[in-house]
Order: sequence, then C-alpha cells, then structure tokens
Amino acid sequence: MGRALIIGAGGVASVVVHKCCQNAEVFEEICIASRTKSKCDALKAKLDGGKTKITTAQVDADKVEELISLINEYQPDIVINVALPYQDLTIMDACLATKTHYLDTANYEPEDTAKFEYSWQWAYRERFEQAGITAVLGCGFDPGVTGVFSAYAAKHYFDEIHEIDILDCNGGDHGYPFATNFNPEINIREVSANGSYWENGRWVETEPMEIKKVYNFDQVGEKDMYLLHHEELESLALNIKGIKRIRFFMTFGQSYLTHLKCLENVGMTSIEPIEFEGKQIVPLQFLKAVLPDPSTLGPRTVGKTNIGCIFKGLKDGQEKTYYVYNICDHQECFKEVGSQAISYTTGVPAMIGAMMVMNGTWKNPGVYNVEEFDPDPFMDALNQWGLPWKEDFNPVLVD
Amino acid sequence: MGRALIIGAGGVASVVVHKCCQNAEVFEEICIASRTKSKCDALKAKLDGGKTKITTAQVDADKVEELISLINEYQPDIVINVALPYQDLTIMDACLATKTHYLDTANYEPEDTAKFEYSWQWAYRERFEQAGITAVLGCGFDPGVTGVFSAYAAKHYFDEIHEIDILDCNGGDHGYPFATNFNPEINIREVSANGSYWENGRWVETEPMEIKKVYNFDQVGEKDMYLLHHEELESLALNIKGIKRIRFFMTFGQSYLTHLKCLENVGMTSIEPIEFEGKQIVPLQFLKAVLPDPSTLGPRTVGKTNIGCIFKGLKDGQEKTYYVYNICDHQECFKEVGSQAISYTTGVPAMIGAMMVMNGTWKNPGVYNVEEFDPDPFMDALNQWGLPWKEDFNPVLVD
Repeated sequence: MGRALIIGAGGVASVVVHKCCQNAEVFEEICIASRTKSKCDALKAKLDGGKTKITTAQVDADKVEELISLINEYQPDIVINVALPYQDLTIMDACLATKTHYLDTANYEPEDTAKFEYSWQWAYRERFEQAGITAVLGCGFDPGVTGVFSAYAAKHYFDEIHEIDILDCNGGDHGYPFATNFNPEINIREVSANGSYWENGRWVETEPMEIKKVYNFDQVGEKDMYLLHHEELESLALNIKGIKRIRFFMTFGQSYLTHLKCLENVGMTSIEPIEFEGKQIVPLQFLKAVLPDPSTLGPRTVGKTNIGCIFKGLKDGQEKTYYVYNICDHQECFKEVGSQAISYTTGVPAMIGAMMVMNGTWKNPGVYNVEEFDPDPFMDALNQWGLPWKEDFNPVLVD
Repeated sequence: MGRALIIGAGGVASVVVHKCCQNAEVFEEICIASRTKSKCDALKAKLDGGKTKITTAQVDADKVEELISLINEYQPDIVINVALPYQDLTIMDACLATKTHYLDTANYEPEDTAKFEYSWQWAYRERFEQAGITAVLGCGFDPGVTGVFSAYAAKHYFDEIHEIDILDCNGGDHGYPFATNFNPEINIREVSANGSYWENGRWVETEPMEIKKVYNFDQVGEKDMYLLHHEELESLALNIKGIKRIRFFMTFGQSYLTHLKCLENVGMTSIEPIEFEGKQIVPLQFLKAVLPDPSTLGPRTVGKTNIGCIFKGLKDGQEKTYYVYNICDHQECFKEVGSQAISYTTGVPAMIGAMMVMNGTWKNPGVYNVEEFDPDPFMDALNQWGLPWKEDFNPVLVD
C-alpha cells in the first residue's frame, strides 16, 4: 500500500518496526531514522529479508530543516513519531511543511518542565486541517487504546458514560530487587508529582500517591495501584460527552516504591552534579550506570500486563458497567519481537494507528486524539495484531 | 604525672585528646600522631593553651620502624591506639620493641577479612609479660566499659553470673533519612554477617539479623534491637567464671535498615569498581560522597545513647538480676568536646584506661582485657569523667 517513516530507534520503535514488517501489505516500505544511524541499521539487519523494504537514515529530530529534507527525499505517506516527547513539535512542523500525515504515542512536553498537556499540539489543529493532513495524537496503549476503548464503549454500550477508571497494571517480574525500564528520573517524577483526576467539570488534585487502591486483576492477581495524573484524562474529559469522573490508576509494588524512595532520600536520584575525585558527576547518571541495563530486562521479565478501562453509565435508562482490557505476556512479546510487554503494548497500537491513516479508515484533516475516530476497525485490528481484548459486563468496581 | 602518645586523629581520637586535656594532672604532655599531620595540628590548635602540653607528629602506623622512632623520640609512658583496627599489631610490635605500655579500643582485624577475634593480640601475652609492660585491649565502651561492668557485677553482686545480655542502644536522630557515622561498608558488614552468641560452652550461630527483640530503654524508649556477634563475647566467655550465656544486642531503626538494604540491593554499596565515563569508580566511594559528611552530623544529632549489661545469676543461693548502664546525651557531648555520643562513649574510657595504667592502678605485665583488672577505680572514674552509670536491681529481662 505505501511507505512509513519511523523516527526513533528505541524499544517502542523496535516493536513498531517488527509489526510493520509483519504487515507488509500495508507497510511495503519503511525508513527507520534516528540521531544514531547505527541503531537503525541494527534494527534493519534483524528484519531484512522479509517483504517490507527497509531503509535507514540519520536525522536530528530537534532540527525541523533536517526532518523536512528527509521527508522530501523519502516521500512517506505518514511519519510515525516514536522519538522523544520533546520532539513532537519539530516533527509536526516538518509534517506541515511537507503535507505528510503524523502519528505519535505521547504528548509533547517541554524538556525542562514536567507538564503533560495537549495544548501545544492542539494548537496545530487549524494548520493541519488547512494542509489537508491528519495528525493522530497519543496512539500507544495509554494514551491510545484506552481512548479507543472509551469510544467503543460509548458507541456500542452506553447512552451516557458517567465514569471511567483506567487501570494500568504491570505484573511483570524481572527478578532484580530494583531496576527500571527507563530513566529512573521519570519514575521519580511520576511518583513524586501530585496526582489528579477529573470530576464534575474540574480537576481535583491529590498529594503524590495519596490515593491507593487494591484491585484483583485478571491473570495477574491482587495489586496495589495508585491514582496518578495521566495525559488521556485531558482529552477524554473533552471528547466523552456527559462524563462526570475520569481517574487513572497504575500499579506499583511496595518494594519498587521503597527502593525509589530510599534512593531519592540519600540523593542518588539528584540531577545536581557533585564533585567526585575532581570530576563533576550527576548522581542519577551514576545510579543508572549501577542499575541493570534496561535492555537486559526483556529476556528475564516474566508475568503479564493487564491494562483496560472500567466504564459506568446509562443504557436505555438502566445503570450499566463495562470493563474492557488487554492482557499481554512479557515472555510471549519477547519471543515475538524481542521486547517485553511495556514496549509491545505501546508499539503495536502505533502500527495499527498508522495503518488506519494509510488505508483511509482514519483520514480526516486536522489534529485528533484517538477517541475521536471510529473505534471498530481499530478494535478488530487489536485482536488481529497481538493485543486481543476481553470484556466483562459485571466487573468489580474501584471504590 | 606523665605523657601519652595518641595515635589517630579521627572522631574518637579527638575525644581522647579533649579528655586528656581535662585531666592535665595525669596527662601533663600528649603527642597526637597520625598519617595526616594537619589533622593532628588542627586538634592541637583547638586545645592549646591549657595545662597539657600538646605536640604533634606524622607517623604511618603500618610501619613498625616509624612507630619505634617516634616512641623513642617522644618517650611516652603509654601509647593510646585510636588508629585503625588493622594497625593494632604494628603498634603492639613497636611498644614491645620500646617497652612501652599499650592500650586500644577495638581488636585487631586483618584488612581483607571480617574476622573479629582476639587470637592475634592474645598471642603477644608472653612477650608483653617478659618485657614488663601492660597491654589493655578493647578499652572503649563496648568492648571496654561492658567488661568493667561485668567485673564489677561479679565482684560485688554475684557468687556466680550465669547470663549476660549486653544492650547497645543509640536513640540519636540526625534528622536525615539516612546517614552513617562511619564507613557504610562496615555497617553493611555488621548487618549482613551472621550473628552469634555464647551458650553452654559453645558458639551458637544465627542468620544475619535473625533474632530481633524489642526493649524499652531508660530515657530513650522502646527500640528494636538485633542480636549480633561482638568481640567482648569472646573474652567475657573466658574471664567470667561459670558463665552460661552471653548475648549482644544493638538497636537499628527500621528506616536505617531499609535504606541500607535498598542501597545494597541496587549495588551502591559494592566495592567492585564500575566503568563510568571512562573512569573506574567504586560505587561505595561515590555513595559516601553523596551522603552527608559524618563530621557534619555532630551538631545536629539529638537524643541519647543507652549502653549497658543485664546480669542474671546467684548470690547467697538466691537468683538475682542486675542491670548497669550509662546514658549519654548527643548534644551534651557535642557541647563538651565537639563530638556526639558515639565517639564520646568510646573515647572517654580510653582516656580512663590510660590513666589507670599510668597511675599504676592497672599495671600488670602482659596482655589483658579490661574485665581482668579491678573494676572499682574505673567505675569511680566513669562517674567523674562524664559517663555516670545507673543501676537497676529489678530490670525487665530480654526474653
């Protein structure tokens, strides 16, 4: 059908590339581009020989001009942005300049502040509309599939959705007392930031990790989960009509939180350099060097993720509840694409979203969050491409 | 009366120097010697102007010849060894060669093994006897005062002592979530080593931190304490006739243990260097650089230590119990000598022991542990020199 330019060469990008190659009818050609071309070449070497024609390129995604040149040269149907969230805007600028469709998995955030919000990207709406191109924002799992789940619930099962609880559970175990899948600084920020949820038309802020619940997850078991702010709350609050409350919960193990807190307490997570043997060293950087390399976690992580949404609302005047979720097995993901479930659940929806745009199912000029499109073909594709979902019409609710 | 050579310039040495200067009738002259002469000079500068004449010297306590030269030149009546435990034997060798009395506060341990035992130093018995000089081993608080307490109990209150529980409680709070008074490596070793106690003529080994008790300490309150091996168990098992059981307990807060465990888990306490930005860095060394400087803890540590011994045995055919202990206030110690109670409770007994030898009260050629001498004058001196003790003839026992 066409060609996609994939920007990024990390864990999620690797999954996207694997899945595109499985779907060669749609992705006849892909180009993998990142600052470090050798990483792209390594990915290409793993997957070359299939039906999808793979090329690679070097690009600095901070530089709009470089991006424009690459897009003009490669002429992709869509740019799949799985680079850093700091780079969303430069890539959108390049897509505008070249009239190329755009898709990402995480909202833009300025590099120096922890501000998760869509305002910067929504500001591109009119320009994308006028250029006749589509931007799909936040098309990973959460945000992403959680929005598709919400649109699906609204379309098929409810007249009005009043409450959504998004439950993100990682029941994986890598066997280390402590290790992080990514930058521990981001973990710290997550658990030390205030939480918030949407209720009756306004944001309610909580203390960091103030609201803790226990939930018994299908195929994972009972886990502690904590209310966090999460970016899809912002778009769902606007796009799900009549909504009264949306909350987001993520599971964290007590041991994980204890290690993180202790490391923070002693100063090992600080980004302020200290003088050590005549050298300036950032404690967090040193900590990362001591911790297990995230890329070594995949082969040893066992267990499952369980991510989904519980809806409460009205249908034909009756109160109704509905829970839709995906269960993903770390080891099976690793066997299939060489990454564990955290990357897998983000990368697969990105591939599907790009397919939706390329085959015209989701083509609409402007800037959109996923819940604004028809969910049905995406829901079918989830079943087909490795993220099957389950439904429960009588779920245990979060109190 | 005479002159003492003090080897070492750390926290305990500083207390010894302060207390010697308070006791100028006995310590007319002292020489402070260590590898880093500037530390000795700094101590001298603080205390100069009193009645005690202070000099300083540079010496490498690993080198017997350097020690012998210094002793020959200074002609001290006694060498007070408050250097590293690794250096006990070289200093004893130099004392033998120059026929000078010797006193230390911690038993010799080889630098590369965690072996706390007196065998190496007891092997000097005959040579010290033949040279006509006295070596007093382990004359801090524990070991040290705990041995004096034991000898005192045996002399005055019991016909037979059957059980001794040594209780070492630090109720101090420096206000940091985590900090160590000294090398965290030693802390780690302490809590990760097997525990042991003496019972019915043999050692009983426990898992690390296996035996935990709660005790309500006078002026400190209820604390968790753990059974550890400690060096005085070895000498008391030999020197207290008829003893059936001796145990040693030290308090550790849950938060302290948790931080230590987390840091160990992530590898931050490792002494194996890792490659970091082209440099070999030992994680433990970097951790020490991140943690608060131990020398800054003194001014901010509040609370008290409570260290003592509970005895159980027979007097005139009747069962009898006896608890003798010292309470020491961190802030008062700091006001008096510029160090908190941990250093204070070790340094004061070292000064008193040296005084006992210099004034002839404890002069007996050979190598001795403190419980082998008459405890009465030492007990009086504790009251006089800042470590008053309290008695309880009906204490709560450790179960």
